[in-house]
Amino acid sequence: MEVRDILQKKGSKVWSIKATQTLHEALQILVDQNIGALLVFDQKNNIAGILSERDIVHECHQSAKNLDTTPVSKVMTTNIIIGAPEDKVEYIMGIMTNNRIRHVPIVSGGKLQGIISIGDVVKAQLQNSEYEIRYLKDYMFGGR
Amino acid sequence: MEVRDILQKKGSKVWSIKATQTLHEALQILVDQNIGALLVFDQKNNIAGILSERDIVHECHQSAKNLDTTPVSKVMTTNIIIGAPEDKVEYIMGIMTNNRIRHVPIVSGGKLQGIISIGDVVKAQLQNSEYEIRYLKDYMFGGR
Repeated sequence: MEVRDILQKKGSKVWSIKATQTLHEALQILVDQNIGALLVFDQKNNIAGILSERDIVHECHQSAKNLDTTPVSKVMTTNIIIGAPEDKVEYIMGIMTNNRIRHVPIVSGGKLQGIISIGDVVKAQLQNSEYEIRYLKDYMFGGR
Repeated sequence: MEVRDILQKKGSKVWSIKATQTLHEALQILVDQNIGALLVFDQKNNIAGILSERDIVHECHQSAKNLDTTPVSKVMTTNIIIGAPEDKVEYIMGIMTNNRIRHVPIVSGGKLQGIISIGDVVKAQLQNSEYEIRYLKDYMFGGR
């Protein structure tokens, strides 16, 4: 199974925010969409980082009083890892496990194709194993 | 693969907090341990809920000014789903996918055995598939 198989079902929609917007604005999107991270763009519309729930929790721990003035750029993770549509899902699982991250933006030909979360990976693995079991049963019991 | 196989490697340690403690105290543990959720106990040491990063993000969105006085009980998720050591990992993956949760406490004989995160599941699936590939290669090329 490849990343493109997940994106085909999930779609290419990526929720994002500008690095200069505030954490309060970021929280609004995260809560409204019930998602765990936002891709962050700079003024030139290049990827500048990812803002995750973990980043916000760390900032709340340090100073929660100024979320309406603190810019996303102060808190976001800038050292991000990018995947490609042709990557195997297991490769993405390895990236997530080894780096303790939950979101990997997918880029092809310099263009953003979507974002894969750890929840997407688990859902896809589950559907894949159910498919494999059905396939094996069909094969064993002559359904095909 | 069963939940007990993950717990055997991961251990039974569960980071927890009392429902009457504050969100500020909870944040301290989450940040210090770099984890995504705490199990919450009531005064009688029964499981009262789970406090996740998502719960904290939602509270920060509503009112981030009082984290040092807001009790964990106000924000925690009380409708929690418990697993058992003999559950298949794929069953836990189904629970996580269908309920959009990332942590499942594991209980046996009324006693807490550990907690399984979505990160643990992905790591275990990855190690399992690597094991299966090695096993198949050994089988195909006469290594056994």
